[in-house]
Amino acid sequence: MSVLVGIVLGSDSDLPLMKDAVKTLEKFGISYELSISSAHRAPDKTAAYARTAESRGLKVIIAAAGLAAHLPGVLAAHTVLPVIGVPVKSGALDGVDALYSIAQMPPGIPVASVAINGAKNAAILAAQIIALSDDTVRQKLHRFKEELAGEVEAKDARLKELGVDGYLSVKQ
Amino acid sequence: MSVLVGIVLGSDSDLPLMKDAVKTLEKFGISYELSISSAHRAPDKTAAYARTAESRGLKVIIAAAGLAAHLPGVLAAHTVLPVIGVPVKSGALDGVDALYSIAQMPPGIPVASVAINGAKNAAILAAQIIALSDDTVRQKLHRFKEELAGEVEAKDARLKELGVDGYLSVKQ
Amino acid sequence: MSVLVGIVLGSDSDLPLMKDAVKTLEKFGISYELSISSAHRAPDKTAAYARTAESRGLKVIIAAAGLAAHLPGVLAAHTVLPVIGVPVKSGALDGVDALYSIAQMPPGIPVASVAINGAKNAAILAAQIIALSDDTVRQKLHRFKEELAGEVEAKDARLKELGVDGYLSVKQ
Amino acid sequence: MSVLVGIVLGSDSDLPLMKDAVKTLEKFGISYELSISSAHRAPDKTAAYARTAESRGLKVIIAAAGLAAHLPGVLAAHTVLPVIGVPVKSGALDGVDALYSIAQMPPGIPVASVAINGAKNAAILAAQIIALSDDTVRQKLHRFKEELAGEVEAKDARLKELGVDGYLSVKQ
Amino acid sequence: MSVLVGIVLGSDSDLPLMKDAVKTLEKFGISYELSISSAHRAPDKTAAYARTAESRGLKVIIAAAGLAAHLPGVLAAHTVLPVIGVPVKSGALDGVDALYSIAQMPPGIPVASVAINGAKNAAILAAQIIALSDDTVRQKLHRFKEELAGEVEAKDARLKELGVDGYLSVKQ
Amino acid sequence: MSVLVGIVLGSDSDLPLMKDAVKTLEKFGISYELSISSAHRAPDKTAAYARTAESRGLKVIIAAAGLAAHLPGVLAAHTVLPVIGVPVKSGALDGVDALYSIAQMPPGIPVASVAINGAKNAAILAAQIIALSDDTVRQKLHRFKEELAGEVEAKDARLKELGVDGYLSVKQ
Amino acid sequence: MSVLVGIVLGSDSDLPLMKDAVKTLEKFGISYELSISSAHRAPDKTAAYARTAESRGLKVIIAAAGLAAHLPGVLAAHTVLPVIGVPVKSGALDGVDALYSIAQMPPGIPVASVAINGAKNAAILAAQIIALSDDTVRQKLHRFKEELAGEVEAKDARLKELGVDGYLSVKQ
Amino acid sequence: MSVLVGIVLGSDSDLPLMKDAVKTLEKFGISYELSISSAHRAPDKTAAYARTAESRGLKVIIAAAGLAAHLPGVLAAHTVLPVIGVPVKSGALDGVDALYSIAQMPPGIPVASVAINGAKNAAILAAQIIALSDDTVRQKLHRFKEELAGEVEAKDARLKELGVDGYLSVKQ
Repeated sequence: MSVLVGIVLGSDSDLPLMKDAVKTLEKFGISYELSISSAHRAPDKTAAYARTAESRGLKVIIAAAGLAAHLPGVLAAHTVLPVIGVPVKSGALDGVDALYSIAQMPPGIPVASVAINGAKNAAILAAQIIALSDDTVRQKLHRFKEELAGEVEAKDARLKELGVDGYLSVKQ
Repeated sequence: MSVLVGIVLGSDSDLPLMKDAVKTLEKFGISYELSISSAHRAPDKTAAYARTAESRGLKVIIAAAGLAAHLPGVLAAHTVLPVIGVPVKSGALDGVDALYSIAQMPPGIPVASVAINGAKNAAILAAQIIALSDDTVRQKLHRFKEELAGEVEAKDARLKELGVDGYLSVKQ
Repeated sequence: MSVLVGIVLGSDSDLPLMKDAVKTLEKFGISYELSISSAHRAPDKTAAYARTAESRGLKVIIAAAGLAAHLPGVLAAHTVLPVIGVPVKSGALDGVDALYSIAQMPPGIPVASVAINGAKNAAILAAQIIALSDDTVRQKLHRFKEELAGEVEAKDARLKELGVDGYLSVKQ
Repeated sequence: MSVLVGIVLGSDSDLPLMKDAVKTLEKFGISYELSISSAHRAPDKTAAYARTAESRGLKVIIAAAGLAAHLPGVLAAHTVLPVIGVPVKSGALDGVDALYSIAQMPPGIPVASVAINGAKNAAILAAQIIALSDDTVRQKLHRFKEELAGEVEAKDARLKELGVDGYLSVKQ
Repeated sequence: MSVLVGIVLGSDSDLPLMKDAVKTLEKFGISYELSISSAHRAPDKTAAYARTAESRGLKVIIAAAGLAAHLPGVLAAHTVLPVIGVPVKSGALDGVDALYSIAQMPPGIPVASVAINGAKNAAILAAQIIALSDDTVRQKLHRFKEELAGEVEAKDARLKELGVDGYLSVKQ
Repeated sequence: MSVLVGIVLGSDSDLPLMKDAVKTLEKFGISYELSISSAHRAPDKTAAYARTAESRGLKVIIAAAGLAAHLPGVLAAHTVLPVIGVPVKSGALDGVDALYSIAQMPPGIPVASVAINGAKNAAILAAQIIALSDDTVRQKLHRFKEELAGEVEAKDARLKELGVDGYLSVKQ
Repeated sequence: MSVLVGIVLGSDSDLPLMKDAVKTLEKFGISYELSISSAHRAPDKTAAYARTAESRGLKVIIAAAGLAAHLPGVLAAHTVLPVIGVPVKSGALDGVDALYSIAQMPPGIPVASVAINGAKNAAILAAQIIALSDDTVRQKLHRFKEELAGEVEAKDARLKELGVDGYLSVKQ
Repeated sequence: MSVLVGIVLGSDSDLPLMKDAVKTLEKFGISYELSISSAHRAPDKTAAYARTAESRGLKVIIAAAGLAAHLPGVLAAHTVLPVIGVPVKSGALDGVDALYSIAQMPPGIPVASVAINGAKNAAILAAQIIALSDDTVRQKLHRFKEELAGEVEAKDARLKELGVDGYLSVKQ
């Protein structure tokens, strides 16, 4: 089976953050590949990656970048696959620049922006897209949603049992 | 064939903006339904919409809202379908509040944010997702991308032919 | 006597912050309950909480959340009780996203926003509301206000007695 | 019966905006008084207003101000009644300055901030507080909430009946 | 003589703004060419433009774009010529997004950002660069600087002669 | 008697705004002079102005500028007189850039910033400084303060007499 | 001789910052008094302080506050003395809220804002105002200005002598 | 050969940051001089520096400053050489004030702004300008661009070989 999600990092400094995306895709059993490229330092590599993505069987591209984060938009320029952008918190503006550079794409070439440092949500969003034609992933997403609600219930129950101080002392 | 894209407006004042999304989906031949709901004024209707969306055959939800724009996030809370959020420019903050309320979703429940007032891009993004399992839409997206490039070429050629003043006088 | 104030946390990471609200309510002798819920991960629990709050005798709901902080608004959608929102400082935007998501509620469903991380003021505001029909709390609020002024007087007197360096050396 | 809600305007230029609050209070049958004062130009009047508010029987104060909007905080300094602040959109910063001046109150003296220009929500919030000890208002709030949901349903039905263009042509 | 400055517009809607740059270059007698391209809609055209710019004899590229303004950065990725970026005021964020997308370029690929809508200054900056190897332009720049100071002097003298009201009535 | 206040405009487009400062100084009977200069286009004129201001008998300088508003800071660099900066609302950022450029002066060279477009307050502040050694101005300031409070009282009384609609209909 | 400058702190947590103002006033030989007050927690003390300041012989008031920093404006409401506001960096917004609350004062009641945490500049500004009627302070200000320029010259000379690495190794 | 690039620091605290610019210029073999000056504390030195820069043979000026960063604009006021401004991250606003003070220059006097803390890019931009009349530098820039792309390729290859965990463990 071919790889379904391509994760592209604008810099290897984004790797610790994007491990969250990797682990989430693995949790959903979705095949992925991880690449480092750069809209500015390696524009031809970036263009080639996006241009061949569809024919290589990719379904979704996740791209993470900080500062003037052009990577998701530049990838989107070269493919009709959905591109999910992860604005990375870095530099003096803490990622607001990256959020604007990713979310404010002009009409014609969309990028799906998640939150600043929203690596995990980028992977879940990719899974939601994959799930439209993959029942196994779809069922895992339903189970994941139940788990999320279950965790909230469990924490709420524990808080009610232990009280504020008890909860905080156990947590630490 | 069932409807593929559900467009939900937080207010009927968003309708002129979202006509862009409607026209774009029609251009790609994608079936859609249009609803007005509200995360705050009609929370049960909103929850019911999202909870039944998957079983009704929807593939993607597009939700537009301004101010403290909770609608996309609240819909996403009740479904595993991908939800695309359109922050609407309105109120004193011109949509920055809506952008933050949509893009900054916490881990676990993603929303795909497009630009403030990015109705057209929301529809194209939906088409890109639909296209993953629909070759007709995929081919239309390729043609659309070529058209975009072609329009740029045509405008560039016209500018070179007419010059600045000529171009501007023709344009008006 | 039934519980008067319901404090709802969007995440257990908000617990250390909200201890300030808890301690303040205890200081005013106001009964409270503490819950963890989430507008996105546990939307049904959240809706049920708000829908039953009035009949269970609650007078005020305090809700704390960070990032795209929908929790207070979603609770307010399901109750006519006053809802006080505490925007939590977290993530790349340091709580501005939460402030906008809480304060910028659209017409029809109000949320009373306090400052980012304003847990203590949320509790005082709840006490002010409770005090409208509870003379004991009202008197405690008057005493609290006098204490605040008294503390300022005491610090001012100490500063005048000790001077800058003396004050700072004692303070540390 | 004494007046329950005191509305204070920092300037008579805020009057058109605050008519929304007035009309909303009238809708809920809540008595109110309307005053013009100013934290800066009439500080003694402002202090006197707040200091006597409780003994005059007021339950809630709504204060609207723009720019460096100190009025709600200054009123709150002189009373234990709940103070609701309405940041007014005015000046070069379009009300962000007013939002920060109102929402970011330091610990000890809370102000309940609503949205920029959120006059209507300030009145509803006041009604929610009044309703805690007034069953008539409480029932009106429940009916109001149902009306809000009903209006959404009606608009949604109309949109489905008329379609986008039909709806827009009727609306204009 | 070959063309020295390439002006690239991300959209023909930027043309009225960039006429200022054109007129300024003409004033300095600097040859230029004007193109419409787009980092997203016409990425290959954009890359080709930048890659051939140096060999075609261009000395400076001026690129104007709004929203997520990737055009200057993408051009800079493909050339070692200095690229001047003009953030265009457009959309809900009034050009702050464009300023961040242009100014906040990551290390390795610089773009020289001027002010939002700073078309004229982009042209003067280009002239300053050209002037380093062109004495005619250099002298024109010196004369231009003297003219700027002279205009200030003239206006100051007129204001002192006519007074405020006289000056304003003449000006209108 | 020599001129006491020097008003310097960065551009003649600031003149309508600064008429407010002129009229306010006239109201207080304070002599002034009005000049157009520019930190960037006429730096020598600007430096000379500031360097000679003290010996010419000026007591206070008021400087208004928009965008990257360096004028007040540059004047302050050349004099020990107090310099009051008026950030002018202009350009895409509506004066936030000017506010930051004026208020955020580094240690050593202060500028007294007033609000964006705060021409009138700049003049009052100048009057407050002049009043420290001029009893006539001081008394006028006291009277002015009483007038401000009186106007608030008068408007409040009129509102109470006419009601909202009456007041608004008279005002228009 | 009576005290000339009154420094008022909104909180004793501002004391380390305001030591800079104290030391600077001492350097210029200007008498001062230091008080802790609060616009919100001790409004009567604050009003009394400002109302008596002029008759007690004060010439300038410096007020420091963070968050919704009303203290300088509230003091200014009660006096015709010039009030210098120091926005304090604190809380989630790092002092932008304080800057807006201080700088954006409405017409009629000015506050002279310095930079966020600009304690030293507040003191220099006070000295500049005092110097208008005090030749000793004026001469000290001239000497101070020469010292500032001299320090720059000295550092520049040292950098040229030692080079980057030498300078940095000596500095540490 | 005369020095080609003048680097001016507004403060010696900017020296560690600007070492990046120095090292980059050295890498390209471009002669430079390093000075400390200040638009506010040493305005005459600053003006003299800029006025003589051209006749001393400088081609480009790089100026770094934080807060209300007037240095680049003030230098640009006195020369027709291209001035590159580096906004320095410092103070409560983390360099946004500096970015606005540098980028938002009014028409007539341009400054080329790079990113906040963009010292390295300022040097590369200077090299790009120098390269227009220096083939050695031009060739070095081409090689540098290839190196940048090569580094991306190498990192990408290493990531593919080692995997996420392997890459991260080697990197630390």
